[in-house]
Amino acid sequence: MPQRSRRPLGIAMIGYAFMGRAHSQAWRTVAAAFDVLPLARRVIVGRDDAAVAQAAERLGWQEHATDWHEVIAREDIDIVDICTPGFLHAEIAIAALEAGKHVLCEKPLANDTAEAEAMARAAAAATARGQVAALGFTYRRVPALALARQFVQAGRLGTICQAKVAYLQDWLVDADAPMSWRLRKETAGSGALGDIGSHAIDQVQHLTGQRVTAVRGRLATMVPQRPGPDGPEPVTVDDAAWATLELDGGAIASVEVSRMATGAKNRLTVELYGTAGALRFDLENPNELWFLDATLPIAEQGFARVLVTEPEHPYLEGWWPQGHVLGWENAFSNQARDLLLAIAAMPSADEPAARFSPDFADGLALQRVLDAIIASDAADGAAIAL
Amino acid sequence: MPQRSRRPLGIAMIGYAFMGRAHSQAWRTVAAAFDVLPLARRVIVGRDDAAVAQAAERLGWQEHATDWHEVIAREDIDIVDICTPGFLHAEIAIAALEAGKHVLCEKPLANDTAEAEAMARAAAAATARGQVAALGFTYRRVPALALARQFVQAGRLGTICQAKVAYLQDWLVDADAPMSWRLRKETAGSGALGDIGSHAIDQVQHLTGQRVTAVRGRLATMVPQRPGPDGPEPVTVDDAAWATLELDGGAIASVEVSRMATGAKNRLTVELYGTAGALRFDLENPNELWFLDATLPIAEQGFARVLVTEPEHPYLEGWWPQGHVLGWENAFSNQARDLLLAIAAMPSADEPAARFSPDFADGLALQRVLDAIIASDAADGAAIAL
Amino acid sequence: MPQRSRRPLGIAMIGYAFMGRAHSQAWRTVAAAFDVLPLARRVIVGRDDAAVAQAAERLGWQEHATDWHEVIAREDIDIVDICTPGFLHAEIAIAALEAGKHVLCEKPLANDTAEAEAMARAAAAATARGQVAALGFTYRRVPALALARQFVQAGRLGTICQAKVAYLQDWLVDADAPMSWRLRKETAGSGALGDIGSHAIDQVQHLTGQRVTAVRGRLATMVPQRPGPDGPEPVTVDDAAWATLELDGGAIASVEVSRMATGAKNRLTVELYGTAGALRFDLENPNELWFLDATLPIAEQGFARVLVTEPEHPYLEGWWPQGHVLGWENAFSNQARDLLLAIAAMPSADEPAARFSPDFADGLALQRVLDAIIASDAADGAAIAL
Amino acid sequence: MPQRSRRPLGIAMIGYAFMGRAHSQAWRTVAAAFDVLPLARRVIVGRDDAAVAQAAERLGWQEHATDWHEVIAREDIDIVDICTPGFLHAEIAIAALEAGKHVLCEKPLANDTAEAEAMARAAAAATARGQVAALGFTYRRVPALALARQFVQAGRLGTICQAKVAYLQDWLVDADAPMSWRLRKETAGSGALGDIGSHAIDQVQHLTGQRVTAVRGRLATMVPQRPGPDGPEPVTVDDAAWATLELDGGAIASVEVSRMATGAKNRLTVELYGTAGALRFDLENPNELWFLDATLPIAEQGFARVLVTEPEHPYLEGWWPQGHVLGWENAFSNQARDLLLAIAAMPSADEPAARFSPDFADGLALQRVLDAIIASDAADGAAIAL
Repeated sequence: MPQRSRRPLGIAMIGYAFMGRAHSQAWRTVAAAFDVLPLARRVIVGRDDAAVAQAAERLGWQEHATDWHEVIAREDIDIVDICTPGFLHAEIAIAALEAGKHVLCEKPLANDTAEAEAMARAAAAATARGQVAALGFTYRRVPALALARQFVQAGRLGTICQAKVAYLQDWLVDADAPMSWRLRKETAGSGALGDIGSHAIDQVQHLTGQRVTAVRGRLATMVPQRPGPDGPEPVTVDDAAWATLELDGGAIASVEVSRMATGAKNRLTVELYGTAGALRFDLENPNELWFLDATLPIAEQGFARVLVTEPEHPYLEGWWPQGHVLGWENAFSNQARDLLLAIAAMPSADEPAARFSPDFADGLALQRVLDAIIASDAADGAAIAL
Repeated sequence: MPQRSRRPLGIAMIGYAFMGRAHSQAWRTVAAAFDVLPLARRVIVGRDDAAVAQAAERLGWQEHATDWHEVIAREDIDIVDICTPGFLHAEIAIAALEAGKHVLCEKPLANDTAEAEAMARAAAAATARGQVAALGFTYRRVPALALARQFVQAGRLGTICQAKVAYLQDWLVDADAPMSWRLRKETAGSGALGDIGSHAIDQVQHLTGQRVTAVRGRLATMVPQRPGPDGPEPVTVDDAAWATLELDGGAIASVEVSRMATGAKNRLTVELYGTAGALRFDLENPNELWFLDATLPIAEQGFARVLVTEPEHPYLEGWWPQGHVLGWENAFSNQARDLLLAIAAMPSADEPAARFSPDFADGLALQRVLDAIIASDAADGAAIAL
Repeated sequence: MPQRSRRPLGIAMIGYAFMGRAHSQAWRTVAAAFDVLPLARRVIVGRDDAAVAQAAERLGWQEHATDWHEVIAREDIDIVDICTPGFLHAEIAIAALEAGKHVLCEKPLANDTAEAEAMARAAAAATARGQVAALGFTYRRVPALALARQFVQAGRLGTICQAKVAYLQDWLVDADAPMSWRLRKETAGSGALGDIGSHAIDQVQHLTGQRVTAVRGRLATMVPQRPGPDGPEPVTVDDAAWATLELDGGAIASVEVSRMATGAKNRLTVELYGTAGALRFDLENPNELWFLDATLPIAEQGFARVLVTEPEHPYLEGWWPQGHVLGWENAFSNQARDLLLAIAAMPSADEPAARFSPDFADGLALQRVLDAIIASDAADGAAIAL
Repeated sequence: MPQRSRRPLGIAMIGYAFMGRAHSQAWRTVAAAFDVLPLARRVIVGRDDAAVAQAAERLGWQEHATDWHEVIAREDIDIVDICTPGFLHAEIAIAALEAGKHVLCEKPLANDTAEAEAMARAAAAATARGQVAALGFTYRRVPALALARQFVQAGRLGTICQAKVAYLQDWLVDADAPMSWRLRKETAGSGALGDIGSHAIDQVQHLTGQRVTAVRGRLATMVPQRPGPDGPEPVTVDDAAWATLELDGGAIASVEVSRMATGAKNRLTVELYGTAGALRFDLENPNELWFLDATLPIAEQGFARVLVTEPEHPYLEGWWPQGHVLGWENAFSNQARDLLLAIAAMPSADEPAARFSPDFADGLALQRVLDAIIASDAADGAAIAL
């Protein structure tokens, strides 16, 4: 269990690509926005020494390193933030947890269920020791989505009947877009389903507070081969996927994800329909939550565009005056805040509650939903129970 | 005063161009949508015999005629509907009122104030005899705008501080668009200000329930000459105008109108800001009223897009099920309904209330506001009191 | 085969409820908007003599009748317009076609496939004789959707990869909403799937120009019983449904329909994603088509909100100046126009082409898609080929 | 002239309230997003020692200080960033410029024209010595507005006829909102006009590339007194203002600003209408630019919602992948980048071009426009030439 010394919490970040940049921004910013424990951005880790050295300077880390094993063994490191590709998550996370560190792991938890199970076991043990094992479904910390959850939990939607989520992008529309590790099953695990579908399904469960009990799924690889370094190479993951999900509260959710949806840039849309109200959200306009209160007189009902920038809104106390909108990156600072609060709230192994949600067990559960969707597709669409 | 016989109300329409088509649609439709007095579309009047004959057949009138004097003298005509260009309104309307007919006159009431005054006098006398003299600011009968007025009257906006209206079109952007009667002062009276600004200002007064007490104005003719039949010809009316209006309830309204606003097709926008709420409307999406209730908890405040298609909404009992939207033309049927209801509600000269709003006095008052804006512009923008 | 006499085409309409009102509006209006063959609204038919008499007066029909058999036998009737509930379509349509009449039948074609097959056979024979057998998927005549089809056919979307359609309503959210014929399988055939899902699927096929080859489906009855005249009664149709459709051009379409989607009033949304462009549409704002041209420079790409009110747009030549929007009802007039044009274009049995789309064969094909979705649901979601 | 040594550019920031927080975020972030000169956040200055010490720690400054005179004299300070209230700008900026520092001054430049003139003189002299004197109209660096300017400059709008800008907020709707320095003329200079109207007018001139030559204005103080520390106190600045501006390129612009517009949070809207195209923007959705290309075929014209998150868009190379939107704060980092680039591009006093726009001369010109609007209001609205 990490020390409660007066020194700042030492952070090590593994990985420095897209997610590394986003997490660095969060660690640089969180203390300016929120009251949190003091922290030190100690070391950033990558395989390429020159590149990681440059990243350290640009992104504001005190040191850089190439061997993560050494780094997680350091006394002055309290938090290990894992921003590598998914196939490296399990080994690093388990080692870091066993070394007594708090861990923040980017989503998806792992590339397959066996790894996810091992991670969840390690996390359970670590949590029992007072560590935090946090999973980075960062969109839970987009203020509008956090507000959506508040509305649901306060009963403003009544009983939720139906959820409709989609996550559409278009970066693979061009059939000549080249192969990459994201398009090979062995490195990426799955395609659109795992990468962005996982966000969509996490939102369904998180917002409704209901768990998936059965699925029907459909995957498609619309462009079956793409230019690789040695000529055409088969694409072995999905570039679009569809599913319907049964939820344990009685609702049904539809999910549609795609990397082939021309003109959709990062369009995670969420619609929740309940007996007392409804909600809509679009990640391309992330400061807006659309809320319909079905208990108002019918003549004045309508989806209200709530601009989620008021001090009364989740996370907004740390940011700017009303009307001054946040961007995609701010949710990472919000996540860093919650992680630091979870750490601060863990006084001892006597009270080892999982104070950060989602945790690794949530990640494992989600992995099983993804697996079931893939299994359903393999079964020509027939339903698979969880 | 018109007879209350059992025969249907006989209607004569003068004019058969754009407005004639729209009014014909209304007279053909009103009895299918609403419970109204029986009516007969007896005769349509125009100068060109062949053209008006064809119009009669297409638009569904029993007869056609070329002499409006004869028509308004007919015993079987109860309502005279004036759809001619504005410079003919006064003569026809006064004659029809003096002949004892109910009159519906398209806006603007007249091309100048002297005419408008004569018309208002004739209307006052006729109203005292139990006739209706109605002015066709049809947009008052767009359900969403009628609902807006209900909200204001019910106090849902509190005290209105500020109104912001604009009416933008783009059909004169092309500097080579040819001259027409609408661009000559002698036939059109004024340009964008009178044509579409009159709608905007009527909405300000109607929705707020406040009267204009002073104005500051600015007119512009951005394309000073256009191709005429005999070569370039000066444009003698404004193609854009701006004004601020003081209202007797303390609010200030801004008005902007243009025929040069590229991409704006028929974009009458209305925004009302009050101490307890706010409203927004756009005529290009006329089935939507955006209402913000500032008395709700701040965390859920936002402009709600009310789709004004519920039976609880004004005029909707006559139309389609919820969600089945109306078009621009339906407001004309709503207007015809209200006119017929006003006629039905006038049992005798003993109770000669103006039951249809706006009436000719409203049109005269509006004309004076337009005049004041023009006078302010002539005075380099200095305020003009009314 | 109908006579090509100089007398107007005589129309008989069977049914006078919601659809009867909408079709009546169209027949009253079509000749004012478009150059079409002369027509006469001869007779409206219903079971209740007093009610249909009143409907005839309100809706503008010359006569009324209670026996449709007699009416379709009349010499002065050329077109039979069937607006009854679906379970009566087959008998009336087949009889009318055999009597030599042109037929316009409201959607869905029939409540089951056997009926639909018989109707398609009768239509094929009638078409060979020069009759028109038209099916009323009216939304094909919403100008924005007609424009969407033009864009697809002109190749502006390139190869369509993905379609995403939904049709959401909310009139069954209240669990205490009473039973009706629409909620019983024996009268309604199916629930949301047949009623509104049929529109959604028709749009998929019509807009993409591709045919469904296989489906996976999921139906749900979220409120299993509702108050009936004699106490609680089981709901025997779906109130929501989901499907994925394989199309013969390689695209995959998702379909979601519901009568339980709080706040959705009549929300048919269509999204088409292709290699060269994309389209979006929402029936609650039916005058807008959102078009993204992916061949433009990336810096200026975006969904353009085309306000479909220009003379250059489909059907708009008959209506109002630019920016003056149409309502839900106008599509029925557009449909009436196309039917009259199809009749006008059929000079003889020598050229018996189906000039009106969709026809009864299209309706049968669609019925088979609906059946396959139901069969897939019965098979726990497994794919069903067509 | 600052040294071109190898040490990082040293920054001192005066002020640590709202703007101090925003600028700190920018200085912390700029080097992670962009390739810029090395910099050091050396010292933050405020009057209250304890408060500024805390700010230094939270906002990430190496030191804090209470005497700005000492700080601007320091050798290791190259850039002085002025975030104080406006009435302190002149003294600090002039002193810093005379001390040879680069200066970034928050808008508005000064509270009155005399101060602004003195500042512009000092800046001219400093610029001639190779210093940068930058004015913080940060919204010029919102990517969508920067893109708007690119479109205008590339001729995509043709000749601009009309601009329509508004900046609406609602934080003074409540008549019981207390007095503050912002509502007293002696501390704030003006009210809504100077605070947010200055942004609106800067955008008009910057985007159109045209200069204001004459104005007509109207100010209003809707709530004439508010609760002060010693009872009711008169409000001596405007809480709403309106103006029309003549531009030297022939366009006319309307401006409307308010702190009383219920439901408007930070709603700077810009509309530009030209002969070849049009643009719309709303700061509450700052990642969207709406562009209408009037040279496209009419049937496909419409305002396209360009999501300004592509690498091809201004400033976006420094941020996230497409579709990952920016917030209000990112424009401050963009501004810091441009300031650092301007400094890097100033090799010597031989080439003392003002490479950062807007500079102090722009601020002075804008101040004169604001003065003219106030003068016009005092003259009852009559036009004032510049």
